[in-house]
Order: sequence, then C-alpha cells, then structure tokens
Amino acid sequence: MAHYDLLVIGTGPAGQKAAVQAAKLNKKVGIIERKMVVGGVCINTGTIPSKSLREAVLYLSGFRQRSLYGAQYRLKKSVTIEDLAFRANHVIKNEIQIVQNQMARNRVDMFFGSASFLDPHRLRIQRDRGELELTADVIVIAVGTEPARPSDIPFDDQTIIDTDGLLSLKHIPESIVIVGGGVIGTEYASILAALGIPVTLVDKRPRLLEFVDTEIIETLQHQMKDLGVTLYHDEEVLEIKKVRDHSIHVSLRHNRPVHTSMLMYAIGRVGATQSLNLQAIGLQPDSRGRLTVNEHFQTAFPHIYAAGDIIGFPALASTSMQQGRHAACHAFGCPDRTDTSLLPYGIYAIPEISMVGRNEEELTQAEVPYGVGIARYKEIARGQLIGDETGMLKLLFHRHTRHLLGVHAIGEGATELIHIGQAVMAFHGKVDYFIDTVFNYPTLAECYRVAALDGMNRLPRPWVPYV
Amino acid sequence: MAHYDLLVIGTGPAGQKAAVQAAKLNKKVGIIERKMVVGGVCINTGTIPSKSLREAVLYLSGFRQRSLYGAQYRLKKSVTIEDLAFRANHVIKNEIQIVQNQMARNRVDMFFGSASFLDPHRLRIQRDRGELELTADVIVIAVGTEPARPSDIPFDDQTIIDTDGLLSLKHIPESIVIVGGGVIGTEYASILAALGIPVTLVDKRPRLLEFVDTEIIETLQHQMKDLGVTLYHDEEVLEIKKVRDHSIHVSLRHNRPVHTSMLMYAIGRVGATQSLNLQAIGLQPDSRGRLTVNEHFQTAFPHIYAAGDIIGFPALASTSMQQGRHAACHAFGCPDRTDTSLLPYGIYAIPEISMVGRNEEELTQAEVPYGVGIARYKEIARGQLIGDETGMLKLLFHRHTRHLLGVHAIGEGATELIHIGQAVMAFHGKVDYFIDTVFNYPTLAECYRVAALDGMNRLPRPWVPYV
Repeated sequence: MAHYDLLVIGTGPAGQKAAVQAAKLNKKVGIIERKMVVGGVCINTGTIPSKSLREAVLYLSGFRQRSLYGAQYRLKKSVTIEDLAFRANHVIKNEIQIVQNQMARNRVDMFFGSASFLDPHRLRIQRDRGELELTADVIVIAVGTEPARPSDIPFDDQTIIDTDGLLSLKHIPESIVIVGGGVIGTEYASILAALGIPVTLVDKRPRLLEFVDTEIIETLQHQMKDLGVTLYHDEEVLEIKKVRDHSIHVSLRHNRPVHTSMLMYAIGRVGATQSLNLQAIGLQPDSRGRLTVNEHFQTAFPHIYAAGDIIGFPALASTSMQQGRHAACHAFGCPDRTDTSLLPYGIYAIPEISMVGRNEEELTQAEVPYGVGIARYKEIARGQLIGDETGMLKLLFHRHTRHLLGVHAIGEGATELIHIGQAVMAFHGKVDYFIDTVFNYPTLAECYRVAALDGMNRLPRPWVPYV
Repeated sequence: MAHYDLLVIGTGPAGQKAAVQAAKLNKKVGIIERKMVVGGVCINTGTIPSKSLREAVLYLSGFRQRSLYGAQYRLKKSVTIEDLAFRANHVIKNEIQIVQNQMARNRVDMFFGSASFLDPHRLRIQRDRGELELTADVIVIAVGTEPARPSDIPFDDQTIIDTDGLLSLKHIPESIVIVGGGVIGTEYASILAALGIPVTLVDKRPRLLEFVDTEIIETLQHQMKDLGVTLYHDEEVLEIKKVRDHSIHVSLRHNRPVHTSMLMYAIGRVGATQSLNLQAIGLQPDSRGRLTVNEHFQTAFPHIYAAGDIIGFPALASTSMQQGRHAACHAFGCPDRTDTSLLPYGIYAIPEISMVGRNEEELTQAEVPYGVGIARYKEIARGQLIGDETGMLKLLFHRHTRHLLGVHAIGEGATELIHIGQAVMAFHGKVDYFIDTVFNYPTLAECYRVAALDGMNRLPRPWVPYV
C-alpha cells in the first residue's frame, strides 16, 4: 500500500495547485480524479467552456463591432452549435494537456478513480480495473461541486438542462428561460442574448449579483435588457411543464407564464462529496454538500484540508488556486504570503465585470469617508476605437488620505484592467498615483486617470487641478 | 489687441493639455489651430486613424481568430477602403467633438488661423478673413510635425505617398513598399500585411525599432514575416521610378529591384515650424525643424515652451500630453509630479508592443545584476482563448533585491498589460508581488505571475518555490 506525504482528491484548479505546490516543496504527492479527464468543472464544463463560448459569440455574432458597423457585419447569418463548440474543444484539449504535463513534470502520481475514506489517513480508490488503497499524512479535498438537480425539475438534458449541459447540446435553442441570476445564470443569459436568442432570466432576488457594486449592476442590467434579456426579479418559478412540440411551459408567481424551447436551471451547486464516504471519518458536509474550513482551509481534522468550490463562496478558479496553494503551504510549513484582502472578482458576462477591494455599501457600513471617481469608456479614445460606449471604471478612495479603497469596472477588458488598481492598493497607493502617471494612448487604462481626476475634482478645494 | 496669460499654438495632445491645464489654474488661455479642425496629427492623420485602421483590419480580416477558426472565417472576402475608413471617420468625429467641448468647458478661446511671431510676446494670426494680433505672457509651441518629403521622391499622393496619405486613398493597393522601419513604418507594414497585402519593408538599420528589447523585436520580425512582410534590413532605396500601368520600380542597393503598385515613404518627420516666423525672435530649429528645450520644456526664451512631436523623441500622444501639462504647470508655478522615469511606450503594430522601465541592454550597460522571467501567452488559458500563441511578457528584476526594473510585452493587449508592471515599479515593488497576488482567471494579467515564477525559479536557491 503506497504512502504519500499528500493525497489530493480532485484535479480542478484547487487540487492542481495544492499538488504542484507540495511537489515543489519536495513532497511525495498523489492526485485522484474520478472523471476520465483532469481539470474539473473549470476546464471541462464550467469556466473554460463558458469563456470559450463567450469569445465565440462575441466574434461570430460580430457583437463587439455593432456600435461601429451595425448588425449587418454579423460574421455568420446562423451560428451553429459546432461553431460555438469548436473553440471550446480546442481550448479544453490544450488546457488538459497543460495540466497533465505539469503533474508529470512535478512527479505527481495520477490515479483515475473514485476516492472514498476508509479512515482519516486512508483512501480507497475505486477504478475500472479494481480497487487500490493509499495512505497519506495530509489529504486535500478539492472535489468541487456539481449542479443541483432538484426532483421537481423535469431535467431531460436536451430541453431542460443544468448549467453543465449547455455545450453538449445538439442545437441552439430558439428561446431560453434561465432560472437563477447568480454568476453562472447571469453569464449565460448575457452570452446567449448576444447570440440573438430571446432570454428570460428569473431570479428570486431584487437584483442580480448582490455582492457587486450597485451602479455596476445597474449598468449590467440595462445592457442585458438592451440585448433582449427579459429580467424577472423578485420572481419564482411555480411549475415547469413539458408540452408537445418541444415546448416548455413555465409558470411564474407574479408574471404571466412563459413558453420556451429550452430551460436552464442555474440555481445552486452542491458539493460533490457523496462518494467520499465522509461519514466513515465523521466529517459532516452542510445541507448543500459543502465543507466548513478555518482560515488555513483545515476541516475538523487538522491534516484534512478542503479547497475550491467545495468550501463555497466565491468559487472562482482564481481563488480556488490560491486556496489549494495555501493548504499545501500550510500543511508543509511554508508561509503563504498571498494578500487575500485584495482578491479580485471577475464575472464574464457581456459586458464583463470585475472588482477589487471594498464597495460603497461596505465603506458606508464601516463609516469610512470616501470619494468616488468615474470614467466612462466613451470618454476615452480607446473606448471609441473598440466601440464600447457603456463601459465604466469607478474608483473609491479615502476622502481625507486619498488612499485607494476599491476599484469596480464593467466593460471590455474589465477583468484585465482591475489589476492596475489592485497593484496600487497592494502598495497602499493613493488615487494621486493615477494622476501622476503617463498611460499609453489609446488604452482603456487611461480610464484610471480620467476617473481619478473626476474624483479629485469633486473634492473640496484646494488641490492642484490636473488635466 | 487681446492679451492672454497663455497662448498655445497647435491643438494636438500637447497643445490641448497645456491649454486646459492653464485654464484649470484660472489663467486666461487662447489656442491657435491652422488647420480646419482641432486635434493635430494625433486625431486627424496619425495616431487615431492608424489605430482605427488597425482595429478595422483585425476585425474585418478575422485576423485575431485565424489560429482558432482558420482563414475561411474571414469576415469579408474583399475589404474596401470605405470599410477601413468608416471606423476611422466615426472615431475622428467623436474625438474632435471631445476636444472642442473640453476647450469650451474650460473657456479656452479658439482661433483658427496660422500663427507667426512678431516679437517674443506677440503673435499674428492669419485667418481667411484677415489678420489678428494677440499677446501673451507665456507661449507654448505645440505645432507638431509633418512627413518629410525629400525632393528626390516623386510623391503623387496616389501611388507614392507619405505616412499621412494612407487614409485618403481611393483604393487598397495590390502591393506596397514601405521605406523606413521606424514606429510608423513598422505599424503600417504589419497592419497592411494582416489585410493580406504583400508588403516590402526597407530599412537602413540592422533591425526594427532599436529602442525596443531585442527578444521582443525578434518575435515581432518573426511574426511580420509570417504575415508575409518581406523585411530588408541594412538596405537602402537607390531610385524610385514610376512606370506605366500604375507600377512603381524600386531599385535597392543590395537586393533585386521591387515592382509595386504603391510606395509609402516613412522616413522622418519634420517640425511644422516654417510658418511660425521664428527668425523674428531669433529661435533656430534644428535641421529637421525641431526645437530644443530644457527639462521643463522651455526654449531659449524662458517664457516660450515647446512640447509634443516638435521636440522629437519619443513623439507619442501620451508623452506629448504630459509635456504640455508640464509646460503649463511650470509656467504658472504649480509642481508637476509626473514620474517621467516610468514613461510607457506603446507601439500599435500587429502584434502590439509595449514596455516600461529599462531593457536588458541598458541594465547590462549600467552593470546592474538582473534576472529575467518570461511568460508566453500560449502557456495561459486566456492566450488559448483568444488564439494568441505568440504573445509574451518579460520581466526584468534586480537579481539580489528582486526589485522590478522593466517590463516588456508583445501580443494582444500589451499596451494595457504594461500598466500593471508600471504601478509595481512606481511603488518600488519586487517581482515577489506577482507571486503573492491573485489574478482573475482567465486573464492575460496572469502572465505576470507565470513570468515572475519563471524568473524566480532561475535564481539560485533557496527561496520558497511557489506555483
């Protein structure tokens, strides 16, 4: 029976980074994957496929250029599912290769099979060709989540699907109802709408993505409506009924029923913990299958860590990687220096959204006196050049010290742009930095300067007015 | 006769910023433009038109997607000059409006006419409807440059053109020879090649853009050759002869003659100082019509400043703006805090190039022990998603202190990306920052982390190996 310093269950971003980090620390590491391929939801059904879909839609629909050329410049009159899947498959194959190479290069042993606990240090690996037992000093659970499939939703994986099902479809739907306005529901709603499909998004809450700056979400919602998304807030689905002719009848609590050719159920994901046999060691997931951890990502057992989507919010690939790294570092006594107060968030809707630091609600609650500076893409040359007239960048800074406290952006390239502000915040910089800095022309980065000037100009004088 | 605190000659980036900066300091400001429209070369014939052309080519030729979809996904079989000019005209109109509004909002008086010096404080403005004299305490000369048109080049503005002439053409050439591999020549060569036009680029020097990192230029040259550019280095044009059938015969010193349907002469620009009557005040431009200034952009007359292209390298819109601002600030006693050691450079070739800080040659010369870290776009998910497999980001840092010393990038979004490294350098950050930071996934910004790890891994141990 092989013994490891570290065994990792799951090969998504958290698992990968935990394994490679430990290997770099010269530990003997094994990693276990129950699917046929490595990469987890990130590579295979979630992040990468949806971002590929997004890029394909932006390109094939000519979306980015509509404000400049008009809709007649649409690249393909009718985009097929093959068109959309082409890029995704290309990228998925590549990413799988990269992960496999990384594991091999770092001498991480890979086991394909389903892992379950026999005792706190012992795992059984169920494989096609029989079982295997492995022991380890440290175990990282990074099994991720899978879509919740409540029994009252008549999933058929062709017209009523979960969020993992979109890219295995055989045709593009004529219309779609998306139930659930979280990150995944919002991303898919905007992407499909950009493709020209009528989308109805139904959400229980009064607005989308409640953790995001209000003004940014207002812009997003406005944009989505422009794209043709019907947004039902404070709304609930009462019944989903398949009728003949591939039509679905969706009853709502407050609005008239909707007929649609497809429905995507995008509420909630549950931890993929069932097959782990956690009861054998007395570890109890919460009602949604998720595990509770401390600040070092340790479960109730100090040597059993959990990282990635399995521990809940924010469940982003970027944060999951950091968690996996941190777990391995902590387990093997090397300090993790990551500044987690500055975790960025990226939401790949159309338009994309990103943020770092605190938002207005948080600053108000903490009674921090803050100033606001805003730049709109249409004010700067690059915004004109790319035809993004709705993008904006918002800076929040301390009214007295002028330290930068938060950056919020929506529009093309927002997820890249945010990292400039993140760096300034990491070094406790002031909003003045952006005024004292020369930016390439024409870039979206110039928004920082314009926003900083806007914010400074709203402050009580005297300060030196720059242009 | 009206008297001003400041008179600015020229409405390009330098002139605009000088005028608005002084206005913000409550000075009475006038600005003079000899063309029919504001904005200078930047808006009307240079920066904005060439960047618009670049965006249009990238889009209409399907260039960005070729590695993913293949060339069959080309949006238009034959792109017309109208297609290309459409976006440029749209953006130019908008930018002109923005400048005019900004002048009006800041109560800057605008004069359309040709300015010439009567004495060091007095200008004559020659207008269609007669003359006008204005005086000022301070004068900023921001008249920019125009293409050099040597008498031995038989310019006809249809088949033999200068760099301002491309967008007023009536048709797209079947082939083109570009003489001069500076920034403008290189940008146009790569853009026209991406459009599918056979391009021959002739340059006297052994490599393109000598101020740019060698490895970046190697990548650029390789890419340009892939695009179908014939690059002749260390080469000189001996004779340009028009022959019948709209064909041009170009004799070269070392290579066989080239037949082409169009030739663009892209060597040198000269200061547009002729009509200024500088001899009246005894100010002598150099042989290329440019003015010499001190570190505050003052000419031999302390109250006469010069800013922008008229003072020579680097002649970028971004730096010109800073110069104009600085001149006005200095003239009216408000400190300019811009950190000019961190001026970024952006070159909008295909692929685009950007850099900030020092390059390897400079560090070697200064005997600074430095480390190098490189990330290639193809290594990261975002690079795969956008199909840019040749992009790269290179970090230079001090081998002992690990302080970041320079960032050099080539590829999609390079001009935006560079500003993350610029911020870290401005705060004297170390390469460690990128390892301690969480980046959005998938972004190009992740290149910073990958490059930092690459650089750190090449250092002698021990350091904590991160992943």
